[in-house]
Amino acid sequence: MPAPVLMLLNRPSLDADPLDAAAPPHASLDPRSPSVNVLDLGVTRGDGIFETISVASGRPQALEPHLARFARSATMLELPAPDLDAWRAAILAAIDQHDPVPEAMLKTVLTRGVEGASAPTGWVYLEQSADFRAARAEGIRVVTLDRGYPSTVQQSAPWLLQGAKTLSYAVNRAALREAARRGADDVIFTTTDGYVLEGPTSTLVLRAGRELVTPPTDFGILPGTTQASIFEYAESVGLATAVKPLTPRDLATSDAAWLVSSVRHAAPIRELDGVARDIDTALTGDINAHLLARVT
Amino acid sequence: MPAPVLMLLNRPSLDADPLDAAAPPHASLDPRSPSVNVLDLGVTRGDGIFETISVASGRPQALEPHLARFARSATMLELPAPDLDAWRAAILAAIDQHDPVPEAMLKTVLTRGVEGASAPTGWVYLEQSADFRAARAEGIRVVTLDRGYPSTVQQSAPWLLQGAKTLSYAVNRAALREAARRGADDVIFTTTDGYVLEGPTSTLVLRAGRELVTPPTDFGILPGTTQASIFEYAESVGLATAVKPLTPRDLATSDAAWLVSSVRHAAPIRELDGVARDIDTALTGDINAHLLARVT
Repeated sequence: MPAPVLMLLNRPSLDADPLDAAAPPHASLDPRSPSVNVLDLGVTRGDGIFETISVASGRPQALEPHLARFARSATMLELPAPDLDAWRAAILAAIDQHDPVPEAMLKTVLTRGVEGASAPTGWVYLEQSADFRAARAEGIRVVTLDRGYPSTVQQSAPWLLQGAKTLSYAVNRAALREAARRGADDVIFTTTDGYVLEGPTSTLVLRAGRELVTPPTDFGILPGTTQASIFEYAESVGLATAVKPLTPRDLATSDAAWLVSSVRHAAPIRELDGVARDIDTALTGDINAHLLARVT
Repeated sequence: MPAPVLMLLNRPSLDADPLDAAAPPHASLDPRSPSVNVLDLGVTRGDGIFETISVASGRPQALEPHLARFARSATMLELPAPDLDAWRAAILAAIDQHDPVPEAMLKTVLTRGVEGASAPTGWVYLEQSADFRAARAEGIRVVTLDRGYPSTVQQSAPWLLQGAKTLSYAVNRAALREAARRGADDVIFTTTDGYVLEGPTSTLVLRAGRELVTPPTDFGILPGTTQASIFEYAESVGLATAVKPLTPRDLATSDAAWLVSSVRHAAPIRELDGVARDIDTALTGDINAHLLARVT
């Protein structure tokens, strides 16, 4: 496996101090060595944001939507706005330094920085992707789990940060452990008022007839970059697309359903809460071929 | 200000691999230098737990209750159980290395470790406390904010980790920013079904006549180590104590109320949702004198 690459940004935000006034914009570090201070609020409070970006044959995919969502998460957490030019440069430098591979996973992380300092911390990490061919081709087993919130939570209680991609993902990890306990691979969260939301690290897309549907982001879910790419593709091949509230019954009675995410791409749901269901092999193959072939 | 102390544990859990088979149980590191790997799940996923312990004149206070809660949080997150003997030794070594000060803050952190490795990460950090005399004597302004969950959430959805002291504290930090926006210093979270819970980093205690009351932990709140010390003290001076569900109205009509926590101790609430209220100066002083004088 090629060596992973770590690129530390000297000034991840123009509105904040650089780490070192004399340093270059980004510096390559050994990812096996420690790079984060124990007082960094990213680790002590999970107080930061991230994006995970697919890199196919050296091309960062959906880069601008990811950077836009990164900036949106920063706004929601009142972090200093990321300097997107500096991030683009660090991303391209990381890709340039990595040995060529068909699929890699790139992560951008921005934290509020060391407690008491005025400099946020930012880095880009890149490694070869895990092999997701089985999940893409054969599908995944999914359980629905209560997220504990009503669908109105983002409007009524924005401090709960639903819809921001934060480093505080302990709940998402615990939900995946609960799924494993139930013999499943992944999770779809539900609201207390009867809607389905998203996965811990993915967006839900379902097909009803000739229409692909995904739930609305104002339910406190992330705008899916991969879902957006899939909808563009679907429209180009004559499928309809819609964003609308979906119930567990809509999901159960759909003709096909996927959890879609940047690196695993479209994973068809072959079992829902213990009940086997058909996967749409042809459309899944077409979608994943399209996702992998994207040049931006 | 005396230099902070950082002590890295070589084997924070007996059930997991040590970082280095030949290393001593703990090692002192420079806290100004990076000590955490960018792939540590503590930073990428907020996947870890912590405790904050008051150290008064070199004595760690309520050490055993803190260690018991640390182990309880580990169980809730399915982390390898902390080796409490190793933690006690690292804590005492950190205190021993620190210049003597009247009040210090000690933090224990246990993360799931570097992704893909089988060794959790654990460290002890110690620094002189901030000066909380004003908060203790003059009190704090508090707002109530919706936590978004019903009081039954810990039972119905344990994967939401309510009641565990995790590193995923971005919501707690966002709530404190919302409080600041409303001209307040701190927060009391409320449930969707009409109860008050706790602060982002503190426990609520109120006085109704001759009784001190705190909400039940099965509402998904932390068992308060400082609240437990205060209740012991209260009983020793002839006050009654009770653990029971409390509504915002109970809070508003109480004779006195405090947010209590390990390092700030008892901060009397002098304003609630913009309404000034009396503080119980005498009892607050007695409680804080008792907390500071604890020898265990």
